[in-house]
Amino acid sequence: MKDNEKLGALYPEGFLAASINCGIKAEKKDLTLLVCPKGAAIAATFTQNLCCAAPVILDKEHLRSGKFRAIITNSGNANAATGDKGLADARATAVALAKELNCAVEEVYVCSTGCIGKFLPVEKIISGIPKIVKCLENSAKADSDAAEGILTTDLVKKQVRRDVKLSGGTVKIGGMCKGSGMIAPNMATMLAYMTTDAKIEQTLLQEMFSKAVKASFNHVSVDGDTSTNDSAFLFASGESGISLESKEDIAAFENALTDACIELAKDIARDGEGATKFVEVTVEGAKTVKDAEIIAKTIANSPLVKTSICGGDPNWGRILAAAGRAGVPYDQYSVDLYMGNLPAALGGMNSGTPREKLAEVYRQKEVFVRLVLKEGNASFTAWTCDMTHGYIDINVDYT
Amino acid sequence: MKDNEKLGALYPEGFLAASINCGIKAEKKDLTLLVCPKGAAIAATFTQNLCCAAPVILDKEHLRSGKFRAIITNSGNANAATGDKGLADARATAVALAKELNCAVEEVYVCSTGCIGKFLPVEKIISGIPKIVKCLENSAKADSDAAEGILTTDLVKKQVRRDVKLSGGTVKIGGMCKGSGMIAPNMATMLAYMTTDAKIEQTLLQEMFSKAVKASFNHVSVDGDTSTNDSAFLFASGESGISLESKEDIAAFENALTDACIELAKDIARDGEGATKFVEVTVEGAKTVKDAEIIAKTIANSPLVKTSICGGDPNWGRILAAAGRAGVPYDQYSVDLYMGNLPAALGGMNSGTPREKLAEVYRQKEVFVRLVLKEGNASFTAWTCDMTHGYIDINVDYT
Repeated sequence: MKDNEKLGALYPEGFLAASINCGIKAEKKDLTLLVCPKGAAIAATFTQNLCCAAPVILDKEHLRSGKFRAIITNSGNANAATGDKGLADARATAVALAKELNCAVEEVYVCSTGCIGKFLPVEKIISGIPKIVKCLENSAKADSDAAEGILTTDLVKKQVRRDVKLSGGTVKIGGMCKGSGMIAPNMATMLAYMTTDAKIEQTLLQEMFSKAVKASFNHVSVDGDTSTNDSAFLFASGESGISLESKEDIAAFENALTDACIELAKDIARDGEGATKFVEVTVEGAKTVKDAEIIAKTIANSPLVKTSICGGDPNWGRILAAAGRAGVPYDQYSVDLYMGNLPAALGGMNSGTPREKLAEVYRQKEVFVRLVLKEGNASFTAWTCDMTHGYIDINVDYT
Repeated sequence: MKDNEKLGALYPEGFLAASINCGIKAEKKDLTLLVCPKGAAIAATFTQNLCCAAPVILDKEHLRSGKFRAIITNSGNANAATGDKGLADARATAVALAKELNCAVEEVYVCSTGCIGKFLPVEKIISGIPKIVKCLENSAKADSDAAEGILTTDLVKKQVRRDVKLSGGTVKIGGMCKGSGMIAPNMATMLAYMTTDAKIEQTLLQEMFSKAVKASFNHVSVDGDTSTNDSAFLFASGESGISLESKEDIAAFENALTDACIELAKDIARDGEGATKFVEVTVEGAKTVKDAEIIAKTIANSPLVKTSICGGDPNWGRILAAAGRAGVPYDQYSVDLYMGNLPAALGGMNSGTPREKLAEVYRQKEVFVRLVLKEGNASFTAWTCDMTHGYIDINVDYT
């Protein structure tokens, strides 16, 4: 298999993957395994939702080892709101996989995604483990399968790759993620698995990854509902033998990593449940980044803003109204609002741009909205999607 | 006309009303006038949205007079995000009405509801004023017309009446309101007009009304979007000649007023845009009322919770997930969740109640959800509605 066909997590050297159906879903792939046979450094961020899933609790525990060998992900069941039994199920999965791979259980991580509140069909997963480990032999073909196996209501696979030139040579970054509904990450994200063959020790890895997640996945919201299972991982196999030797190397790697995460984050917004449009909301001229973030996310989560974008109705008053209720003080009569490059409101009121011209912006597949305050120099960009009949269809009878 | 036919704001003595079409909308009534010819005491609360409409700014100014003679409301245009011209338009309306009624302009109030960001067709309103004032002659028939004239996307008129026995005799409370989308009042509400013929001075009136609004309208959310025009008024004509003489009188009046406001608040949730179901979310056992409120409103505003109620899909994990992201700390393993009277989750996990039984609760026209924490004794109840295809239909091409 050629490098350019390996689009995602397997792009860097040192990783294997497999994806099978173990019987949780009727036919689709529902169990996915990503392994670094020689071991890797690991960084991770997790959901801030208090109601966090059993695998999140387990993975936080294992992360203390600083070591990574394998991560197994089931779709079709979130193993959240499942109490002690849920935690025991997650642990049993890790133990079974560690035994099969002949490694310490602390090097094994577990992810679940799907419906909340049902016990994990753990026997199906455990019986699937020998089979999926055997499938690693065909790992060369498994990159795309793995990206598919982690999906729930997502419509498209989300993969990314980057080359990073460092002083010692070129290293690779790869990644895959899922995310479609219950998406409003908070210092963590949906499920994302980033890989690299660079040689990086854990502290630096975690530091860079936390920054990258903050600048990427934490800018996405599909529906304002933060998931119980959000987890993002970065695994560094060191297989290239190349380390980050200088400040320049660190900056180069960090930029490429952030850029790769942003690509995946935007893909998540683009593939939001029922989405027909990608929406970028930028707030500029705020006193602080936090202020800008609060306003941008309030706009990005407003059902009224999202439905009007769906309908191609440039109802810009809804954007000003959403900004005004965000809880951040500013002068309502000195804000400018742009749709694409066209002013919709200037000084907090109608700019005079013809409605038909604004409607054209809202009819595009990618809609850009920019609110300019006059309070300071901070800005924030949020990514979301429109709210459609498709969103309702998907969510009225999910279980 | 008999008393029992006067269902709303005209139920108490001393008030007149009229509603006409002045040409803002094609055919429907779009201009509504409520007058207390002899003058009344007034209490009011307004939106906390920074992006507040011109009439809100004007009314706050006039409220300082403590006097009420008339309030005129147009539907079809919010006069919000209209800058200095918007304020001048609102003022011109008040001036024209004061002249026609031969009273001070500070006793006249203006309300607008409808699309944000368009200039008010103020000439249409001002030319309608002599006509609508003349219509006051037929005020006896206007109660229901007035309740209709203030509506936008609402489907049903919302009126209320109460009798309150005081030591000096029986006084009356009446009211009408509108509210359908962009509903998430914050220390204020949609448009609500409460009346009474009790004799009450302004300070006490405002105190009682602020409490009543806090206990009623501030518990409603249709879509989490706080309007730019929210305003609630209480007018006391004193026409009955009966005052509040004792603590008991004050308590009786306050209870009846709160009760009447709650009836209207629930009607707003019931008539939320696209709503097919009324939803009551109670959070108990919180440390503080604020904690309970934050969690209850996070659940009530969750698109995932609201769509599952629409579909009759008792996906209770979404309720726990919404509670968990509300930002209020609690032990996720000691919460109980009830749908109707049935436990859905106990100790943060599946209660074992058969899905079909829970689904029956979600299939009712009125759905009651109760989340019990074990952190304290505070509770809060929020009222909302389900999220449906109807909501999307109404909002994709509002303008």
